[in-house]
Amino acid sequence: MPFIDELKFDAAGLIPAVVQDAAGGEVLMVAWMDRQAAERTFATGLAHYYSRSRKKLWLKGEESGHLQKVREVRTDCDRDVLLLKVEQQSGACHEGYRSCFFRRRGDDGGTVEDGVRLFDPGKVYGRKK
Amino acid sequence: MPFIDELKFDAAGLIPAVVQDAAGGEVLMVAWMDRQAAERTFATGLAHYYSRSRKKLWLKGEESGHLQKVREVRTDCDRDVLLLKVEQQSGACHEGYRSCFFRRRGDDGGTVEDGVRLFDPGKVYGRKK
Repeated sequence: MPFIDELKFDAAGLIPAVVQDAAGGEVLMVAWMDRQAAERTFATGLAHYYSRSRKKLWLKGEESGHLQKVREVRTDCDRDVLLLKVEQQSGACHEGYRSCFFRRRGDDGGTVEDGVRLFDPGKVYGRKK
Repeated sequence: MPFIDELKFDAAGLIPAVVQDAAGGEVLMVAWMDRQAAERTFATGLAHYYSRSRKKLWLKGEESGHLQKVREVRTDCDRDVLLLKVEQQSGACHEGYRSCFFRRRGDDGGTVEDGVRLFDPGKVYGRKK
């Protein structure tokens, strides 16, 4: 059976995708795919997602230019999560960080921001407006 | 503000947690936490989750002995996903594999099982029955 037909999309037709840097292993982001986004991703080799806020298909990097070239696609034992290993152009996070996971829980139970910032989101996302 | 109070649990009171091997970086599994599971995890240093099928708090490894010692907890820009870096005892997957992501999409669009199997689930999960 084709890989895509084994996937279990949820009641809203979506499946979460964990996105990991193919070289260094850093977890960059988690996004959602519908079947169309998965098909486009597999056909083009570029990560596409479904935006739950904008309710539409979304090519990662369509505005910022920060595309994700997909090197490997995996699914888990329940087939209800995807894992993408990608080559990330610049940063994955719309706030300018390499990874969306730029906050960690500190030893005192507070929050520490320790991510690597690669670009100024005001410049990258402002340029088409 | 305490880290836990910044987290955005969904309408069902849950947040997904991506679990990554602290040393090698392999993504091991994705599970769900409610606030109680997060509190227990942070207090004990051992990963606890909320089982959506059994509708109860669950200490990872409570039956198998395959505990996860939590070395780092992160959240993403939207604060609606957790990333746990753990020391995994034996395998994370209930099917006996080191990672739940033991299936990848092959070049022909089919499915390839290439995970590392560390234990026989029939022996590990059968022993208390």
